[in-house]
Amino acid sequence: MVSKNTIKRITSLGQKKYRQRERIFVAEGIKVINELLLSDLELVELYAEDVSAFAKALPNNNLAVVAQVNAVALKKITFLKTAQKAVATFKMPKTAHIDRYGLTLVLDDVRDPGNLGTIIRLCDWFGIKQLVCSIGTVDCYNPKVVQATMGSLTRVDVIYANLEEYLKNDTRKVFGTFMDGTNIYGTSLPTEGIIIMGNEANGISQEIETLVSDRLAIPRFGEVQATESLNVATATAICLSEFKRG
Amino acid sequence: MVSKNTIKRITSLGQKKYRQRERIFVAEGIKVINELLLSDLELVELYAEDVSAFAKALPNNNLAVVAQVNAVALKKITFLKTAQKAVATFKMPKTAHIDRYGLTLVLDDVRDPGNLGTIIRLCDWFGIKQLVCSIGTVDCYNPKVVQATMGSLTRVDVIYANLEEYLKNDTRKVFGTFMDGTNIYGTSLPTEGIIIMGNEANGISQEIETLVSDRLAIPRFGEVQATESLNVATATAICLSEFKRG
Repeated sequence: MVSKNTIKRITSLGQKKYRQRERIFVAEGIKVINELLLSDLELVELYAEDVSAFAKALPNNNLAVVAQVNAVALKKITFLKTAQKAVATFKMPKTAHIDRYGLTLVLDDVRDPGNLGTIIRLCDWFGIKQLVCSIGTVDCYNPKVVQATMGSLTRVDVIYANLEEYLKNDTRKVFGTFMDGTNIYGTSLPTEGIIIMGNEANGISQEIETLVSDRLAIPRFGEVQATESLNVATATAICLSEFKRG
Repeated sequence: MVSKNTIKRITSLGQKKYRQRERIFVAEGIKVINELLLSDLELVELYAEDVSAFAKALPNNNLAVVAQVNAVALKKITFLKTAQKAVATFKMPKTAHIDRYGLTLVLDDVRDPGNLGTIIRLCDWFGIKQLVCSIGTVDCYNPKVVQATMGSLTRVDVIYANLEEYLKNDTRKVFGTFMDGTNIYGTSLPTEGIIIMGNEANGISQEIETLVSDRLAIPRFGEVQATESLNVATATAICLSEFKRG
């Protein structure tokens, strides 16, 4: 059983304003929840069809609510189309301090939760510790983003900031990809720097573009008349691969 | 107005068996439909809130049904969560002949429509003409796949085949990515070959793995204890980028 109050409270966490007020977010699915349990994050509550699926990862000494519930109850508190076998809530970690060294990825208004989740997963894979997002970027604690990160969220600092201020206060080179940029495959790329990826429909905004020091391009090998561009997550994959491959 | 019969017929095209019987598929959204109209594909019918959005691309001499309808009517024939301003159906092209030269991408049971759509878009970007899919791979005419391709579907031959037969009848090298493979960044990659990407949860199946001649790995730069892997679409982006960058 999940009480009406619990359903109301968890459902409200689908909205950013309630997440920010409570400093709590929702995670779903055995795999994702297990990854979060193994991190430093503090569990608040866990509802699962089979609590034993979390036996290895559940903290011993914890004030969290842990309850075995049926699929009907879970369906009332899920945010995902495909029903998951578990729903949990965790306390948000403290906002990380901004580091100004190494490689940092910056997102200028990425709106799609799946894209942000995939990009956080890429940062984890490529050892990018900090991801700085414009205020207009989708919230990283949106349940769909949490799902798409597959647990990587605990290993990457996601920081929301005014990008103009952030970029103006940094001395590293600022890279962005544009149609008219220099071929990324023929460019010597540094181990320190800021890489900016833009909005799905509009790319990097004009205000931010003026702060880019190095314009790069991912060359297209297919038919040139085609108008279509790369998806922002796959473009990010290619950029990070180029910076890290050495 | 969209008649009850039309609603029933278009809704049935959400199922693969009806698509295959009719050899017709659904495309949604102004951008995607316009891209398909500009290709060799034959339009069957188009329902749009504003038909003039397609003025440049609509064929002059055509037996297709073209009708201006309101949002309420469109909602009855959409397959997407976000309502689109247009829904169209097109005849499927004839299945392409298998080419055995250049680079070919092979998918071993990729199940997620968004992943397949993104991978088709990547093939288009990197000039990969043929994408060979196992019978268990999601159908490329699934409405969600068509949407995610953003029009690239017309520029890539997607062929469904028995992969074991396909691979056994080819003389090119067969590449696959595995944890224990050779670092892809340090390997000289040919301009001809077959690249296999596996299922989201299980990777490349055992039967297909035995047919791989060259085992590659995309190295991880983040924390090594993390269990998570790359998403199949971003892994494909990195592989194709490496093969094509020269």
